Amino acid sequence: MEASAITTFRAVDPCSGATLEPAFADAQPAAVEAAARRAGCAFAAEWTARTFSDAALLRAIADGIEASAQALRACAQAETGLPEPRLSGELARTTGQLRAFADVAERGDLLDPIIDTAVAGATPPKPDQRRANVPIGPVAVFAASNFPFAFSVAGGDTAAALAAGCPVVLKAHPAHPRTSDLTAAIVAEAVAAVGAPQAWFQLLHGSTPAVGQALAQASAIEAIAFTGSTGAGTALARAAALRDRPVPVFAEMGSANPLLVTPAAAAARGAEIAAGLAAAITGSAGQLCTKPGLIALVDDAAGRALVEALSQRLAAADVLPMLTPRLRDGFAAAATLALGDERVTARVRPAADARPGAWQAPLLGELRAAALEPGDVLLEELFGPGALVLWCADAAELELLAGERLPAALTGTVHGDGEDPLVQRLLRQLAARVGRVIVNGYPTGVAVGWATVHGGPFPATSAPATTSVGMTAALRFMRPVGYQSLPDALLPPALRDANPLGLVRRVDGVLGAGPVTRAA
Amino acid sequence: MEASAITTFRAVDPCSGATLEPAFADAQPAAVEAAARRAGCAFAAEWTARTFSDAALLRAIADGIEASAQALRACAQAETGLPEPRLSGELARTTGQLRAFADVAERGDLLDPIIDTAVAGATPPKPDQRRANVPIGPVAVFAASNFPFAFSVAGGDTAAALAAGCPVVLKAHPAHPRTSDLTAAIVAEAVAAVGAPQAWFQLLHGSTPAVGQALAQASAIEAIAFTGSTGAGTALARAAALRDRPVPVFAEMGSANPLLVTPAAAAARGAEIAAGLAAAITGSAGQLCTKPGLIALVDDAAGRALVEALSQRLAAADVLPMLTPRLRDGFAAAATLALGDERVTARVRPAADARPGAWQAPLLGELRAAALEPGDVLLEELFGPGALVLWCADAAELELLAGERLPAALTGTVHGDGEDPLVQRLLRQLAARVGRVIVNGYPTGVAVGWATVHGGPFPATSAPATTSVGMTAALRFMRPVGYQSLPDALLPPALRDANPLGLVRRVDGVLGAGPVTRAA
Repeated sequence: MEASAITTFRAVDPCSGATLEPAFADAQPAAVEAAARRAGCAFAAEWTARTFSDAALLRAIADGIEASAQALRACAQAETGLPEPRLSGELARTTGQLRAFADVAERGDLLDPIIDTAVAGATPPKPDQRRANVPIGPVAVFAASNFPFAFSVAGGDTAAALAAGCPVVLKAHPAHPRTSDLTAAIVAEAVAAVGAPQAWFQLLHGSTPAVGQALAQASAIEAIAFTGSTGAGTALARAAALRDRPVPVFAEMGSANPLLVTPAAAAARGAEIAAGLAAAITGSAGQLCTKPGLIALVDDAAGRALVEALSQRLAAADVLPMLTPRLRDGFAAAATLALGDERVTARVRPAADARPGAWQAPLLGELRAAALEPGDVLLEELFGPGALVLWCADAAELELLAGERLPAALTGTVHGDGEDPLVQRLLRQLAARVGRVIVNGYPTGVAVGWATVHGGPFPATSAPATTSVGMTAALRFMRPVGYQSLPDALLPPALRDANPLGLVRRVDGVLGAGPVTRAA
Repeated sequence: MEASAITTFRAVDPCSGATLEPAFADAQPAAVEAAARRAGCAFAAEWTARTFSDAALLRAIADGIEASAQALRACAQAETGLPEPRLSGELARTTGQLRAFADVAERGDLLDPIIDTAVAGATPPKPDQRRANVPIGPVAVFAASNFPFAFSVAGGDTAAALAAGCPVVLKAHPAHPRTSDLTAAIVAEAVAAVGAPQAWFQLLHGSTPAVGQALAQASAIEAIAFTGSTGAGTALARAAALRDRPVPVFAEMGSANPLLVTPAAAAARGAEIAAGLAAAITGSAGQLCTKPGLIALVDDAAGRALVEALSQRLAAADVLPMLTPRLRDGFAAAATLALGDERVTARVRPAADARPGAWQAPLLGELRAAALEPGDVLLEELFGPGALVLWCADAAELELLAGERLPAALTGTVHGDGEDPLVQRLLRQLAARVGRVIVNGYPTGVAVGWATVHGGPFPATSAPATTSVGMTAALRFMRPVGYQSLPDALLPPALRDANPLGLVRRVDGVLGAGPVTRAA
């Protein structure tokens, strides 16, 4: 492979605009390929003889993060501009999900054991047939800009891959390279402490699409997890599909997160909803995957009062530092486009801020829902502190909007009374195109649990049957292996007759935790 | 859309070479797009108000097939050359899996309900969060050539999609168009009988890649299921990835299905294994996805005797009609290439057959395993009645072959004593690259159950985490939807507090069938 010219990059303090030292070198294509190969060799060696516990590794990482929490927060604050309470909460979430995945891995909850016992003399033949999940192999994880801990080096995708039993080659996000290195050092210490192969976790820096493309094409990679923009995620998915040996891509991408307010809810709780919305739109400077970006309501007195209250809150809101000047510039350009659209009226127009850095004031635009077309550019994610109000003439139009015009998204929210049949119909329509529906709440703040669905049809993700957050996110990195007519001793423990792991298993179609008796 | 020239095709009787009437017209791109849109409209209408039972539809199709079994078999025999007993067995398998999927759909076994109850005052917040699977939408199914019933119009992919609650747009295989039309008429009758929308099942004919490409690109399609060659499957997967709105592709493709024999097994049961292998290689003229194509064993007296016995059986075997002249020509060309490779020695060289049609005699080649390279063309699937023997110098080389040189495949088989540590090591190596491992059996004959894994890493499939056969195949066509803070009455029945469907659900991490109590 030909060596490319070495390029470097530096992070920027979004609050001051100051360039931060040191410089980081973009990984060379040969180094990317080599890292993936090392991960492949480590996986192959561990496949035949496992030398460490996935749960122990996950817990050691969580412990290490806690021990260095202060240094991690300080570093992340300089690189991201996120406030201390947000970063503290994010660290707690990060260690919490590492430990939750440790428990899940330890208990064997991800193995999905299924047993069909033999039926002697059956036509067609029914041999003893069992299956359980195994790790898929080295996973390439692309860290996100907007969560320097929870969706980054030791974040959800890494934790899920490690819980599945897979090594990780992680591409750090160039917005927070020093935080990434600090975290990677903690992970490396944990890897050493539990006796895992050194290559079980590797970090690559990259500020150019070339690094990501090289990683997506690296021969030993078996799956790709990504969090970021629809454009970058789609490019990765295409690169992976065009490989000689295609691999699955789990990309969590852009989402407009529609939020619908019924006339009754606007009348009953308009001011409260306006306050909740303002907080959801400006929290983390609007840089959450689940920020509500489209607010649909009926053009009546209560609806107008709600939007007026929301406008006042957003107009009065602080100017906020976005994560990077590049993200700020992207938001500003999208805002200019949206507010320049002849169908859109500006309710809150962000003023330019003279300070250096990535400062951005909130935006609110409004337009008639009837003016929207399916696939309209105005329905795309606006990543930053902004939203569009979609005015409907009446409840029927609100329903039509939900059923026919809204884009697929990670979330869809309805504010309304649960007894109101309109609410039920709106929820049903939203469920047809989103990963998670919410009643009388806000989509920001994804609770990490077994029932978490942080996914949805394209463009929200590239893999609608999966979630990138929550315990079942680990299943993205596993595959079933079937075992036909194996003597008990040769089966993995999860599938042995006596059920030594005490798992709930599907035996001849029925879930239960008992042992299995073989026909003689 | 510009109308293309209408092209037509006819099936061929592979036993006589006679062209069969009538001619069938390739579906025009506009007709393909229109069919997908009709399926999309039907799905949207059923999403808001379900008018029929998936289970009833599946059972009505099974009943209809049984009522027309004789006509179906006669038609399929003319178009495929498959013998009557094979077609009878395949019909039974087809109705069996339709009814098994009906039971599964009826019981709600595919819904995977998960509930995390709310924790008041938790940091971060823990709202009530639940999830269950919903159908993904219209599925494009590409029928296979080699199973005119079980992997065709009303075959496994169709049954799985219907069980998931999805409408199907099916591209019939051009090798058996009349059988396809007959079956489609039965499905259409069942659709009408149970009151499903007419567009819930639609059949398209196509003998050119253009029809398949149009279907893969049709706007309303949400997932694609395919059974066929690696080339065609990969082309479909790429087309789907390059769509404006990419959709998942579940392609079950080529597989070399390695079968390894330990020295002890060759010594103890060489003649028996030779007989089993000869039957597995020639059954259905070798046109099964799971036909063992690579036979690896140690070059000792017992191994040589086994291969000699296998050679005699294959040399004495009947000349067989393959499914189509095109498949026969493909096999003959691949055979010529393989036997022309300087590393390969012919043990059984198929003689040309002067009869018109698609007649083909079996082939057996042999070579030193040490001569193979990773990704070697000789490791690719040979679709038809042929196999290659891979000679290993000793057991260590057999192990090395299993661990480093064999391709990914649907299946991997070991013949040997379960007490022999070599068997355990070989199985472990095979499990790293196949979907199903088998001990002391033959990979042909896939039992349809919950534990079925008919899948594997590329090139066996395009989606290594899935199976295209068995009950869990339906999960390919479902996606989870999360419900946050919904009043009980607005939840789908599977997730309601009282557990009205009586399902086993994961509640706060633990599987059980009880009701849920909400915090006040």
